[in-house]
Amino acid sequence: MKNAIVGQSGGPTSVINSSLAGVYESCKERDAKHVYGMRNGIQGFLEGRYIDLGEHLKTALDIESLKRTPSSFLGSCRYKLPELDDPKGSVIYEKIMRELEMLEVGYFFYIGGNDSMDTINKLAIYGQAHGSDIRFIGVPKTIDNDLEITDHTPGYGSAAKYIACVTKEIVRDACVYGVKYVTIIEIMGRNAGWLTAAASLAKGEDCEGVDMICLPEVPFNVDRFVEKVRKLQEKKESIVIAVSEGVKLEDGRYVCELSDDARSVDAFGHMQLTGTARYLCNVIARNLKTKTRAIELSTLQRCAGHMASRTDITEAYQVGGAAAKAAFEGQSGKVVTLKRISNAPYQCTTELHPISEVANLEKKVPLEWMNDNHTQMRKPFLDYARPLIQAELTPIFVNGTPYHIYIDEKK
Amino acid sequence: MKNAIVGQSGGPTSVINSSLAGVYESCKERDAKHVYGMRNGIQGFLEGRYIDLGEHLKTALDIESLKRTPSSFLGSCRYKLPELDDPKGSVIYEKIMRELEMLEVGYFFYIGGNDSMDTINKLAIYGQAHGSDIRFIGVPKTIDNDLEITDHTPGYGSAAKYIACVTKEIVRDACVYGVKYVTIIEIMGRNAGWLTAAASLAKGEDCEGVDMICLPEVPFNVDRFVEKVRKLQEKKESIVIAVSEGVKLEDGRYVCELSDDARSVDAFGHMQLTGTARYLCNVIARNLKTKTRAIELSTLQRCAGHMASRTDITEAYQVGGAAAKAAFEGQSGKVVTLKRISNAPYQCTTELHPISEVANLEKKVPLEWMNDNHTQMRKPFLDYARPLIQAELTPIFVNGTPYHIYIDEKK
Repeated sequence: MKNAIVGQSGGPTSVINSSLAGVYESCKERDAKHVYGMRNGIQGFLEGRYIDLGEHLKTALDIESLKRTPSSFLGSCRYKLPELDDPKGSVIYEKIMRELEMLEVGYFFYIGGNDSMDTINKLAIYGQAHGSDIRFIGVPKTIDNDLEITDHTPGYGSAAKYIACVTKEIVRDACVYGVKYVTIIEIMGRNAGWLTAAASLAKGEDCEGVDMICLPEVPFNVDRFVEKVRKLQEKKESIVIAVSEGVKLEDGRYVCELSDDARSVDAFGHMQLTGTARYLCNVIARNLKTKTRAIELSTLQRCAGHMASRTDITEAYQVGGAAAKAAFEGQSGKVVTLKRISNAPYQCTTELHPISEVANLEKKVPLEWMNDNHTQMRKPFLDYARPLIQAELTPIFVNGTPYHIYIDEKK
Repeated sequence: MKNAIVGQSGGPTSVINSSLAGVYESCKERDAKHVYGMRNGIQGFLEGRYIDLGEHLKTALDIESLKRTPSSFLGSCRYKLPELDDPKGSVIYEKIMRELEMLEVGYFFYIGGNDSMDTINKLAIYGQAHGSDIRFIGVPKTIDNDLEITDHTPGYGSAAKYIACVTKEIVRDACVYGVKYVTIIEIMGRNAGWLTAAASLAKGEDCEGVDMICLPEVPFNVDRFVEKVRKLQEKKESIVIAVSEGVKLEDGRYVCELSDDARSVDAFGHMQLTGTARYLCNVIARNLKTKTRAIELSTLQRCAGHMASRTDITEAYQVGGAAAKAAFEGQSGKVVTLKRISNAPYQCTTELHPISEVANLEKKVPLEWMNDNHTQMRKPFLDYARPLIQAELTPIFVNGTPYHIYIDEKK
């Protein structure tokens, strides 16, 4: 009997722990002796940091709490494995394989986005080339929804639900004074506008919705933006705009680079993008003499477990379980994906694809899903996204706040 | 039979509409013929803008939805009535009284914070001096919790619950990478730190809580702040700090004034305060070579109806009802206040006080409720605040988001 190991990588989400629960329970059901958890992904594992999940998940309530706790229970990393043809890298791969063999690991799961799929892809290729019988399976997660092949990614539905919900609340709040007022909501999404597009879900019988949506897929022009806002103001007083942190000028520079804030860069070369809304608010205030407010949803949008989509939690659990099933059935080098059967009624199932089909690739929002001047989402997007935000899993409230489960390092 | 009129003023909250529902239902029960609603408070009323609430609240579901819809259903204003001894002001008071008589108003309610109590105080004094038999009653609301006399203000409990909830989520999110990281959460509160103090409610069996709290009641020293953070970093990697937007230097300047953002000022002379967390993050990054993230809770904290406290919603409804009762029983120039009977079990009732006892005054957080170096809240605060965030009123989810009720201007 072999053991299993699982890691979480990249930015946290509201439901990445539900996938962890799915992997854990499904491995246990398939008689894995131990299910280990890497602390801080492959980076922590390289430092010898891992736990036996069975020691932390002892009761059914622990598992239930895990499903409802946002962020990465095991911790995460943004660590890039060396290229396979880099001779200096072999020492790292050898160390990982040695450690896995020592732990008698037969099944290796990594829950993450496109950067994390790069990690598991390299490990699967290395393992196969070196005669290892360990099965490597990728479990998709990212609020960004930018993975190829899969219909959508676990994590997106909950972030989209949170964004739709707070956008409605912001729209209500922003119109109270009945004076000219421009609110710009800054939403995550470096190159793909899926999250920002979700602001369009605010519109309905009980909400006017946002007045403009700016996705990174559409080159941004500051002067034209000001002009559009001026025109919107001719018709109503409170204007609410959803803008992606990743909107770029025609020359490729991020709009937030026009402000003078210092920016840091991570291991994958990604620049920290914030300040887009603030910069645009300053431009609007200066040009249109209007009161403005910039609202950055920041990390709130990726860890709002209290507003998770039940559809998303369930699917996150399912992809975790499907990954375990695949590994125990002998699959390796694959990633679990979601395939939509139908929109109405919404039905979705899991599939397997070679990891190479998704690693390091980014899926963008199709521009046909926007109106002609690229300021609003059209029906195809709404039909696509609406099912993903349906239903709730009420948090377990203890002492007035949602209950979480976490690893207390001091114990 | 006389009519009633009600207005909402100042910053919106998650439960100000629950007070509106309380005033409305209680007036209707007492046989008010019409209950009018001022659009945008006294400012809109001066422009002849008001509605008949009965035309908008037709069903029991409408009332139920109103209780759960954040922000001000009637719209709000930040309008300061002229001083009573200002001879140029009499034309405004005459206009208001004339309009009220034309509408056959016998009962006048104004839901608001300390600035709004100034409005109703002036109207009550003016009315009495000019032989009017209209009864003027103030209904307290403010997320800031800075009203005198009342144990707490409706609106505070829900904002506090939201702050405690998202602080827990931020704490979980901020520790995932296991690297040195400083997160500063910027919370509303110009001169009183009640909201920022609520971040201390995040701490519990399932959360480490915040590492430092900075209230506006305590003079802020940037160098000492950096030194405190450096010391905290010696013990753990992820440091989460809750800082009030209103923290001030010893010389009285707001910390956010040290940044170079443009700032606007409202009718009461209040400066827009944002950028405190961002400024402090930049200082920390520069001095401690640490990754940082500034999170402004912005207006999200005052309109998060989806995370309202049921205790707060109920009390907001009760103070509205108590105001109607008082007016119909002949009281005028009074404000409804909350009086706590006991902490455990939590019990609270309503009282009446002269408006002059609360108008234009601000209640601060007692410094005895903090530890000696003013970085954490002590048990007396936790015992005070914990009951106010208890229990939930689940939103009515329609199509994946909480349902709201609003006045569609286009209809």
